[in-house]
Amino acid sequence: MEPSSGSRDAGPAVTPVAAVLPAGGSGERLGGATPKQFCAVQGRPLVSYTVRAMERISWISNIIVVVSPENIETMKSIIEKYGHKRVMIVKGGITRHRSIFNGLKVFVENEFSNHLLQKPEVVIIHDAVRPFVEEDILSKVVMAAKEYGAAGAIRPLVSTVIASAADGCLDHSLERARYRASEMPQAFLFDIIYEAYQQCTDYDLDYGTECLHLALKYCKTNAKLVEGTADLWKVTYKRDLYAAESIIKDNLSQQVCVITDVKEAVAQIGFLLHESLKSQVKVEAISISLSRNDSHLQNIFSGQCYNFVCINDKKYAIQETQQLVDMLEKSNLPLLYPVVLILMHLDISEDISFSIGMEELTRIKKFAGEMKKKNILVYGLLIQYKRVLITFMHRNIGSDSSYSKQL
Amino acid sequence: MEPSSGSRDAGPAVTPVAAVLPAGGSGERLGGATPKQFCAVQGRPLVSYTVRAMERISWISNIIVVVSPENIETMKSIIEKYGHKRVMIVKGGITRHRSIFNGLKVFVENEFSNHLLQKPEVVIIHDAVRPFVEEDILSKVVMAAKEYGAAGAIRPLVSTVIASAADGCLDHSLERARYRASEMPQAFLFDIIYEAYQQCTDYDLDYGTECLHLALKYCKTNAKLVEGTADLWKVTYKRDLYAAESIIKDNLSQQVCVITDVKEAVAQIGFLLHESLKSQVKVEAISISLSRNDSHLQNIFSGQCYNFVCINDKKYAIQETQQLVDMLEKSNLPLLYPVVLILMHLDISEDISFSIGMEELTRIKKFAGEMKKKNILVYGLLIQYKRVLITFMHRNIGSDSSYSKQL
Repeated sequence: MEPSSGSRDAGPAVTPVAAVLPAGGSGERLGGATPKQFCAVQGRPLVSYTVRAMERISWISNIIVVVSPENIETMKSIIEKYGHKRVMIVKGGITRHRSIFNGLKVFVENEFSNHLLQKPEVVIIHDAVRPFVEEDILSKVVMAAKEYGAAGAIRPLVSTVIASAADGCLDHSLERARYRASEMPQAFLFDIIYEAYQQCTDYDLDYGTECLHLALKYCKTNAKLVEGTADLWKVTYKRDLYAAESIIKDNLSQQVCVITDVKEAVAQIGFLLHESLKSQVKVEAISISLSRNDSHLQNIFSGQCYNFVCINDKKYAIQETQQLVDMLEKSNLPLLYPVVLILMHLDISEDISFSIGMEELTRIKKFAGEMKKKNILVYGLLIQYKRVLITFMHRNIGSDSSYSKQL
Repeated sequence: MEPSSGSRDAGPAVTPVAAVLPAGGSGERLGGATPKQFCAVQGRPLVSYTVRAMERISWISNIIVVVSPENIETMKSIIEKYGHKRVMIVKGGITRHRSIFNGLKVFVENEFSNHLLQKPEVVIIHDAVRPFVEEDILSKVVMAAKEYGAAGAIRPLVSTVIASAADGCLDHSLERARYRASEMPQAFLFDIIYEAYQQCTDYDLDYGTECLHLALKYCKTNAKLVEGTADLWKVTYKRDLYAAESIIKDNLSQQVCVITDVKEAVAQIGFLLHESLKSQVKVEAISISLSRNDSHLQNIFSGQCYNFVCINDKKYAIQETQQLVDMLEKSNLPLLYPVVLILMHLDISEDISFSIGMEELTRIKKFAGEMKKKNILVYGLLIQYKRVLITFMHRNIGSDSSYSKQL
């Protein structure tokens, strides 16, 4: 794979970038009454996942969601419920192109809002029903748009494409290898795509579907095509909702963040846990002092990790855990799904009193009861051990043997 | 919708039809080691669902599954385990076209088997990774192939198709409405597709993917294009496996067969149950004497219904239920998934003795224990009631009021 052309500190970061998400579709192919972008996946509307994917990216300044008039209230309540930021709702037109055009107008006309948003240099156009878009591809299309004026993600064709004759018979089939499926995201120099929309005909606005085509036809801009990953697929049919749900469940269950304080012995346990888990799940292991508002931890929250293991060796670690809970709540994470928080309290003191351990567990139990109301599932684990146990644990997972000596 | 051109007693039934299922793909797009056709969906390999969809159709005489040499043993064990009938395994070539060609050869050459299979008039070609194919579309492509020489299912394009220039930029985009995705199943007059394969070049065999194209290029046969349903999609990516699993689960849980004996009062309960369930699940209600081997019931088994409600008003109904269990086992149904069997024993006698009811329930419990080993989950329900109860039940679901008078 070639290196990403848009790393975090290069390109997009210094270019004003906005995103327009057309979400006005009726979802007729789903066969249901609810338009697909508003269908619940794991209890949360699909469009909210897509907005979340965009707002996670710090260099996108504004996210314009274009919805049909009857769904404006629905969209407002979604933004409020899930705490979305930097989002503006714009009333859509009767076709996809008219909706996107409306979305672009908020940067240059007063038609849709009291105050004009700052006109971006590059605008991303992305479907509300493609929730799994990653920063990497967004960064690539933005960088390519800066250079070429327009860019779009493409994928190999899954089926052969054919043209039919008037009698409903095969006229010819296209050689699959020579063609690609045009997907989203796409990105444009704002002035190019806006001019294309201003110049294009009513026929284009009513029957066209492809922004790259408009840029080519009206601004002579040949878009740069960027190979995307399979994640970019569009939720079109009911089966795609099933697939989206399974992918989201999978992602949630396969990420865990191991948090330890900075004390050496505890941080080492965190490292060992990380080593033994990493072949099975995606693990982030961080050693922080929970008392300060750690920005790395904030990033993990916004990366939507829902499983945490907190390791400590202090008495009354609950006060510290409370700080973590406060941060979780502030991030709105527990609103979306249950957050799982496993408190691993290590007691490495030589004189072990069972009753003190029980007292601590009772405290955790009470704490867990309160947290459950906030959609945070707390599990307590009290581990009393002597040094020999660490050595054993360590040998089992086969990592650097210096630890057993240090402990 | 236009009426199906291939009803069960017209067309296909009198035409010798065989099917070739290329199943030699490596599944590289799935990103896993197991080729997608052998991936387990609800514990059962995908290819087995597709074979099952074919063998359910009585007018398909032979099903040729073409697999790569290293998967022949796997395929053999699948056929044995799931009791597939009318299936022959053929060794595939290194490309899709070479595999299909091998599949066709079993009808005219001695290369692959000791005895030649009867050459069909029409041959269906269908992907092993499209498990949800229905009789209706198979029938339509077969009838169209008889008339036009070739036919294939098509679907609207989901994405715009574009051609790229040598520099990786957009050359032009195709007008989406003028093109279609070519899907499977396809059907051909055997002589046409076999001749096309005999005449085609090594380049076609190695790099081509589209059978309709070969029929056009080498036999001047313009295939009839038949609009298919969304079910025809091909399992290509991992998300498609998720979707397939959800669809299969959905289908299983949303079908129930209500079986009653022919006695009027009991059959009426069956009817009432059918009426009250039909808005939520797909219900088949049949009144039969279980003592004879009912062909309608056999059809339901092969239609893969896994939920049964048996209503009776006889003492010791278990002997009769045993016959149903025997039929289920013979159908191989409980091999695939747990079969749920709810025994509803109605006691409408005037003098109700609670202890007799308990005796019956104990008997059912013991029976259920034995059945569980056979993957049949039996639940017993003993309902003791007088006529007034039937009237009440009936009014609640609001169907024809004559029943309350009759009972």
